[in-house]
Amino acid sequence: MTQHIAFIGLGNMGGPMAKNLIKKEFKVTVYDLNAKAVADLKSAGANTADNAKSAIQDADVIISMLPNGAIVKSLYTGSNGLINHVKKDVLIIDSSTIAADDARAVAKACEQKGIAMIDAPVSGGTAAAEAGTLTFICGGEAAHFENAKSVLSAMGRHIFHAGASGAGQVAKICNNMLLAIHMIGTAEALNMGAQQGLDPKVMSEIMKASSGNNWSLQVYNPYPNVMPNVPSSNDYQGGFMVDLMSKDLGLSQELAAKSKSATPLGALATQLYQIHQGTGAGGKDFSSILQLLQKNN
Amino acid sequence: MTQHIAFIGLGNMGGPMAKNLIKKEFKVTVYDLNAKAVADLKSAGANTADNAKSAIQDADVIISMLPNGAIVKSLYTGSNGLINHVKKDVLIIDSSTIAADDARAVAKACEQKGIAMIDAPVSGGTAAAEAGTLTFICGGEAAHFENAKSVLSAMGRHIFHAGASGAGQVAKICNNMLLAIHMIGTAEALNMGAQQGLDPKVMSEIMKASSGNNWSLQVYNPYPNVMPNVPSSNDYQGGFMVDLMSKDLGLSQELAAKSKSATPLGALATQLYQIHQGTGAGGKDFSSILQLLQKNN
Repeated sequence: MTQHIAFIGLGNMGGPMAKNLIKKEFKVTVYDLNAKAVADLKSAGANTADNAKSAIQDADVIISMLPNGAIVKSLYTGSNGLINHVKKDVLIIDSSTIAADDARAVAKACEQKGIAMIDAPVSGGTAAAEAGTLTFICGGEAAHFENAKSVLSAMGRHIFHAGASGAGQVAKICNNMLLAIHMIGTAEALNMGAQQGLDPKVMSEIMKASSGNNWSLQVYNPYPNVMPNVPSSNDYQGGFMVDLMSKDLGLSQELAAKSKSATPLGALATQLYQIHQGTGAGGKDFSSILQLLQKNN
Repeated sequence: MTQHIAFIGLGNMGGPMAKNLIKKEFKVTVYDLNAKAVADLKSAGANTADNAKSAIQDADVIISMLPNGAIVKSLYTGSNGLINHVKKDVLIIDSSTIAADDARAVAKACEQKGIAMIDAPVSGGTAAAEAGTLTFICGGEAAHFENAKSVLSAMGRHIFHAGASGAGQVAKICNNMLLAIHMIGTAEALNMGAQQGLDPKVMSEIMKASSGNNWSLQVYNPYPNVMPNVPSSNDYQGGFMVDLMSKDLGLSQELAAKSKSATPLGALATQLYQIHQGTGAGGKDFSSILQLLQKNN
């Protein structure tokens, strides 16, 4: 029997994710405040609804991909929350990147009503969302995780169970903090080498074959024209915006404070992206942090 | 005709490197202040000499692997320097990790006497030195680099030409600064996840499949018992000492100051290893930086 999926939140990530579900022949009903995004999904074959409540009416699975924790909490919980209107045996999958405590609050509200819910933030960005090769990092009960796998596999390649509710968010935020750190570190190393007259292409090859190797060097080089088809070679357009990296780093520092975890480089990375954002770079790809380090005179 | 190689400096790196040359049937004459290290190489088949000057007397190639720039400069240059006693057409290869300016000073003194010299620091540590799989990162004239390749290939797998004299040292120091940064970042991410109850093994698998992926996660996990056969699973014994990483980070900050390069994370990494060293951890492997972050109460 075809599963009916309600998809709420059709932004740069949610839109292509919902399209991949349609391609895999799930029945998909979508909702977003943005009418243009809804129309785009309609032409891709989705059913549409006038509001979130009607979108989820007959849904076996609800997936949400929303900008922040406050929106996720108000969508699901409270007196008008969707969890008061869902079908029996529904599975809720929230793929938004939000604070672990917000994810846990929604999961707790679901649990009190006997509703299955997992947090399932993603890694991989818009390219992976379009290609259906996202990494899903899930938190929640093992049984719910198992039930979510077939749906998540339609949108992603790696599906991980990180632990209990909120664990998906914790792992995602730790990952993105580490990403920011090695991106800045890679930019520092390449910039210092270039200042000494070394060719960033040669430097990159050397460090990829050495202990400096990391994802930024492998697939997302921040130095212009070292790699084709990355934002740095396209004036830092597209990709993962500084504004979004700043948001994730903010979540990492909230988590660090709450868990009393020492994150000295994470804290400085947060400040550096804040400075970069303050220069007006918020809409550029996050690898543009190189420009903050470069001399302009 | 068998090339005759003089090898000066038989420490944890130089010893196994010289042995690999013997295995590849080069004629090798060794010298070190440490008689035990010399005796060890003698039983492996090396010729020995009473001092550096006699070791290099008939050498076609001189390789040095020494602790710091001052020692390298005094070995080669000055009134008693080896460059006053070398055979015509000798090739000097210095594999020590030293300041780029020191490497350039030695190269300049060589050039003035018409002697070929390259800087060729290595990446890979003692395991790669023993296995003959080091990465050599070379600076100097292209012709000298080409002439060095056959000898370096006997000790390493990847042989890179980074640029002019000193460029090998610049690339090596940039690489090790980046290594320190992603090692600390990896420790911060794994520690914060563990504080939130996540399993460091699962976290590591998730981040390896995501954008946090880096060399520390892939082959040198700092969290105890996530990987077998790494220092973190052996009470941080063996490997690459905190004292040595601190030395390399010191060189990175000298280079940053001289080249007016902004290295905010590199600077903080330097301070964190300094703090760690101050706790008495200088002799532990550098992945023990995790212990500086962990709560002990």
